[in-house]
Amino acid sequence: MTAEMLRRLAEILEKIDNVTVLTHMHPDGDTIGAGFALTYWLRSVGKKANVKNSEGFPKKFSFLYEDYKDMDFEEKAVVSVDIADTNLLGSPLDEYAEKVDVCIDHHKSNREFARQSFVDGDSCATCLIIYELLRNIGAKINPLIADCLYTGIATDTGCFMFENTSPEAHRAAANLIGLGARAAYINREMFQIKSRGRILAEQEIIGSMKFEHDGEIAVITITNEQIDRFGFDRADLDGFAGIPLSVEGVRIGITLKQQAEDPGTYKVSVRTVDTDASAIAGRLGGGGHNRAAGCSVEKPADEAYKTVVAIAEEYL
Amino acid sequence: MTAEMLRRLAEILEKIDNVTVLTHMHPDGDTIGAGFALTYWLRSVGKKANVKNSEGFPKKFSFLYEDYKDMDFEEKAVVSVDIADTNLLGSPLDEYAEKVDVCIDHHKSNREFARQSFVDGDSCATCLIIYELLRNIGAKINPLIADCLYTGIATDTGCFMFENTSPEAHRAAANLIGLGARAAYINREMFQIKSRGRILAEQEIIGSMKFEHDGEIAVITITNEQIDRFGFDRADLDGFAGIPLSVEGVRIGITLKQQAEDPGTYKVSVRTVDTDASAIAGRLGGGGHNRAAGCSVEKPADEAYKTVVAIAEEYL
Repeated sequence: MTAEMLRRLAEILEKIDNVTVLTHMHPDGDTIGAGFALTYWLRSVGKKANVKNSEGFPKKFSFLYEDYKDMDFEEKAVVSVDIADTNLLGSPLDEYAEKVDVCIDHHKSNREFARQSFVDGDSCATCLIIYELLRNIGAKINPLIADCLYTGIATDTGCFMFENTSPEAHRAAANLIGLGARAAYINREMFQIKSRGRILAEQEIIGSMKFEHDGEIAVITITNEQIDRFGFDRADLDGFAGIPLSVEGVRIGITLKQQAEDPGTYKVSVRTVDTDASAIAGRLGGGGHNRAAGCSVEKPADEAYKTVVAIAEEYL
Repeated sequence: MTAEMLRRLAEILEKIDNVTVLTHMHPDGDTIGAGFALTYWLRSVGKKANVKNSEGFPKKFSFLYEDYKDMDFEEKAVVSVDIADTNLLGSPLDEYAEKVDVCIDHHKSNREFARQSFVDGDSCATCLIIYELLRNIGAKINPLIADCLYTGIATDTGCFMFENTSPEAHRAAANLIGLGARAAYINREMFQIKSRGRILAEQEIIGSMKFEHDGEIAVITITNEQIDRFGFDRADLDGFAGIPLSVEGVRIGITLKQQAEDPGTYKVSVRTVDTDASAIAGRLGGGGHNRAAGCSVEKPADEAYKTVVAIAEEYL
């Protein structure tokens, strides 16, 4: 984000108080990290702030909010983090759709729904924007805020593995580790540890992976029956989206996840090596980044499969 | 490595010419990256230099040596990189055991076999030491050298995931990407892409993982029969060592690999969460780092298994 934008954003944040910070539904490390980092920092400079999610925060991230408690105040400002569109608020937070004062995001597809939008589509994580913001104003980044920001940068870059990993992401990580971020612990929690059930589940899902277009497209499907049988937290499912792309020769990896609340709908993750994932997802009303994007398809499994594969083939 | 050591090392490297750079057997990304980086840099300042490995360099790393050719010269100096002990030279290079002039390494267990040793056991990679060396003398790091150094740092830190990942490792990565290192390509080659055969093999090997000591120890065994059946390059096997530690609750992960040339011997990889891997491996005559170490056991599979597990249990 440009220094000028960061300066304007800092000016606004300095003026507001009694702030609700909104994170997106099916929360990931970046929205959670950015939400708590911003909230903790606002509180650290004497303001009142809470962070909200339509579904509550997954246990997997509990190390970021063990001592967090909501404060009691009359809300006067609303900031959203890592939210590209109001339909990502989730129904319990729908009331906020028209009320967002400041939007901080790194999705190119951001719909600019807020009164003021601070979007940097070239930044690999909203947490990287928050990091630059805090650094620019010389804010004190305590170890817990460093944990939050490191979590978002690490998760959105696949632990510095994906193409979106910029020198700035590495420099931020270096400084955040210096400021006390528990990188090794966080990496282990986010990327390494799997339950034995998860490992069995991966074996089953990988075993049923399908290949199309001479092996350039790989597709996995995760059903509600599997999610129930393996006892998954929905947040645990994020890591699966990277699996199809890990197969040699695959250029587009697709993951179809049946939705719990709406079993006739499949959430689609599109990951790509060298084609535009957001364009593919966009054809089905979704969006995201160049190499990782998502959409939803309201069709039975086999039709959802055919629909997504047919579109993906056009991009090879 | 201290600035003073780096200065002395630079002084020596400036004086020598007609250099053979040695890398360790079963070469990994760090020894290969350091070997080629040093060789390319020596050549770039007008010196003659070759890099050698007892087994040749694995295809997996061919992007680092596509245009490399041995030069013709009468050897006057020998430098080893990432080699802790002369028994890691491998038999075709045994003749060098007494001839190493300069040893550059990051293994705490380094046996100081060279005339002059430059060892920093706190550095996460030998490539990080080479990077600091080149940076300190203001050397030009071209994109190919940046690729080499990035490869070593990334592979020895598990793509910035392991506990050994220092702020310096991230800063080096940031600068190397800025200098042209193809990080996304390298990460995909090193960490993400797997052949379909590899995926099937992982399924079989993970499926036969054994647990000991209330699930705090996990062990996988890879036999020559499996290596042959799945058509593995031995270099492809490195990634397996991380698998046992990825299971929730596991504190010590052990991988037993039957040796091709000596089927009565198992190479043992020890990875740990919070215990001293090098101490465990050391008990069997091996060594390495705090969280990743190795040794060899000359026993049939089931006895090798029991021997290593019994020692590991003492460290829990």
